[in-house]
Amino acid sequence: MKKSMIVVCAAMMAGSMFAQQNLFGPAQVKSPEINPDGTITIRFKGPKAKTVKVEGDFLPEKLIETPQGVWAIHPAADLVEGKDGIWEYTTPEPVPADYYTYTLTIDGVKTVDPANVYINRDVATITNQLIVSREKGDNGDLFSVNDVPHGTVRSMWYYSKELGTNRRITVYTPAGYETSGKKYPVFYLLHGAGGDETAWYTQGRATQILDNLIAAGKAEPMILVMTNGNAWDTAAPGESSEGFQQPGALTLNREGTKEAAFELHFPDVMKFVEKNFRCKTDKNSRAIAGLSMGGFHSQAISRYYNQKFGYVGLFSGATGGVQALSQKPQESPVYTQFDADFAKQFAKGKEPKLFYIACGKTDFVMPGVKALREYMDQHNYKYEYNESEGGHIWRNWRNYLVEYAQKIFK
Amino acid sequence: MKKSMIVVCAAMMAGSMFAQQNLFGPAQVKSPEINPDGTITIRFKGPKAKTVKVEGDFLPEKLIETPQGVWAIHPAADLVEGKDGIWEYTTPEPVPADYYTYTLTIDGVKTVDPANVYINRDVATITNQLIVSREKGDNGDLFSVNDVPHGTVRSMWYYSKELGTNRRITVYTPAGYETSGKKYPVFYLLHGAGGDETAWYTQGRATQILDNLIAAGKAEPMILVMTNGNAWDTAAPGESSEGFQQPGALTLNREGTKEAAFELHFPDVMKFVEKNFRCKTDKNSRAIAGLSMGGFHSQAISRYYNQKFGYVGLFSGATGGVQALSQKPQESPVYTQFDADFAKQFAKGKEPKLFYIACGKTDFVMPGVKALREYMDQHNYKYEYNESEGGHIWRNWRNYLVEYAQKIFK
Repeated sequence: MKKSMIVVCAAMMAGSMFAQQNLFGPAQVKSPEINPDGTITIRFKGPKAKTVKVEGDFLPEKLIETPQGVWAIHPAADLVEGKDGIWEYTTPEPVPADYYTYTLTIDGVKTVDPANVYINRDVATITNQLIVSREKGDNGDLFSVNDVPHGTVRSMWYYSKELGTNRRITVYTPAGYETSGKKYPVFYLLHGAGGDETAWYTQGRATQILDNLIAAGKAEPMILVMTNGNAWDTAAPGESSEGFQQPGALTLNREGTKEAAFELHFPDVMKFVEKNFRCKTDKNSRAIAGLSMGGFHSQAISRYYNQKFGYVGLFSGATGGVQALSQKPQESPVYTQFDADFAKQFAKGKEPKLFYIACGKTDFVMPGVKALREYMDQHNYKYEYNESEGGHIWRNWRNYLVEYAQKIFK
Repeated sequence: MKKSMIVVCAAMMAGSMFAQQNLFGPAQVKSPEINPDGTITIRFKGPKAKTVKVEGDFLPEKLIETPQGVWAIHPAADLVEGKDGIWEYTTPEPVPADYYTYTLTIDGVKTVDPANVYINRDVATITNQLIVSREKGDNGDLFSVNDVPHGTVRSMWYYSKELGTNRRITVYTPAGYETSGKKYPVFYLLHGAGGDETAWYTQGRATQILDNLIAAGKAEPMILVMTNGNAWDTAAPGESSEGFQQPGALTLNREGTKEAAFELHFPDVMKFVEKNFRCKTDKNSRAIAGLSMGGFHSQAISRYYNQKFGYVGLFSGATGGVQALSQKPQESPVYTQFDADFAKQFAKGKEPKLFYIACGKTDFVMPGVKALREYMDQHNYKYEYNESEGGHIWRNWRNYLVEYAQKIFK
């Protein structure tokens, strides 16, 4: 019996490979390619195409004037057709080590690079992924999966009494958590408008960053909690009972969203985390930070639930925005005591160990960040400030996270 | 201060939305659309395109003769151009409730549907996802995220002494696991050649299936363990230290793969799971099953590590294939005692509670499945057999899982 089965099954296995593998066929071109001189080449095989363009944050930057100030953009670049219908574009300069995203536009239709299987979904935005890393410790390396001890990443659900619904959450525990028996500090990391509980885990590279920083002894082992900040949603698109619906246009006044609904439900998150994980629960073992809308949320939550967070981080933080989040801000207790709550947060001897503000020079939220800093300066509230190059972009947010993660719980 | 910040930040928040949202712009067409009559329409806006085709497993089936026997295929269908450069295809018949995948081929280039953000990667194969569900309990419903208690899904790493490396694994625990204090039975679910530790979790819909079956009282709460069955790999493409490399062609004789390397490392998986989770560890609280190559693995592992598994499932199982997995099968103890080990597995009073074999009528592995059944019939080894319609396809494997999951641990 064994011999006949061996023959039959050798054929089966071979067949099985072709049946499942490479639906796109063997890749006809290599794209992207990181060249020895540090430039990047994008290729597309399409003999019938008339125009092929690439858009991506590794392309040369251009500053433009807008009513909101100077913005940094990366204008699309043209691929040029060569032999055999293979189109090509190479960056004019070496590209710095980093994580990038890009798309192709073929005859006017924006889509992904068919030769690159690494794709990210950010709500309704689909992009290809690309990492450039040249040496240990550079940004590309920090954002990569390396041969270091890895933490565990969980997609799980918690019940929010405040919102009356189950909600999805991403929780990272550091390498060794399962068997150490130890308690760990907790870092709540919030996404922006246009994100969900997967954002920091995917293009935010937060779990890779923590794995690498912890392995290098540069960050403390910690639990990382990534919430869904859209109070009207229960989970990322495709992961909720709404199914595979096309993600709708964002609005901050969606049905079911109450004033400051996300902030008011936050104690449900903290209770869940502290019940289900081995957490240190003193103020200086709790950090919060967020990008854009998540910066707004971090400021509001750390102010309203006063003396709960020893570390607060605002990454391109939309630091005001009360009206944007609610048409009736005056009705929410989260906002009505702004000055008084802020004063309590910075009461002498009770200040946060770190209040970290970071913003890009060409970021359109800069006016709000300036206003917040002036307010804090006037009141003598101490903060640390990181003004970087660039605008309202993930590259900055990842960099701010790398810096912030090394400052907390120390 | 508050008022000025409100004004500034309302603008900021609005800007932030546009900066992050809808890189593809508002969707120009709705695709896919499930019509009231049950048909499905695929649309593509491309005024400059010359030909647009759709390939997918919801298209009408066609049987073809091949040297390996009759195969079921779904020939590509043409989209037809209408007004404003909008191309359209509608299925001739209503499409049964199920989970489907598809791609578009635009002017000869295979790619995804730019209007559908739901994308799956299966090694090097990228497809769009689509679920049709009409009523509670139908297949589409079973494969959907529903408003039921959800388990937790972990991506984590274990060390394999046998392979000398850390490896990635997906572990599902049922709703309530974190706080119940109870022990649970464990189900090891293995992918095929052309898959990895994410395969059953993504297009296999295994965690949705278990959430739904457990919530309906049709399956026992259980821990579900999804391994990476490619011994030469440590993790799915993009999740290992190999970075975002184009996944290579599959070969079952890759460098670093020893004879029966996956099977021989399996005790490392079991030890890790039983150390890190609250597991029942008696034979009848352990199940194993796999699709295609994973069926081969399941049969080999349950035979070689005798009396460890009360339930064994072979879904389109490549049930022989020794030579395909190793050029020197005679050197591996996993294979040398085939008859004797099989006899021990089915020793009187020690038989598995369930030995489940499932295969599609037009599946090219059918000859191997027939040979195995004949062998088992000759030796009076009892098994349950499910012969379904269709071939070597995920639709069958999901259905087999639905059936198998309701039979184990009872």
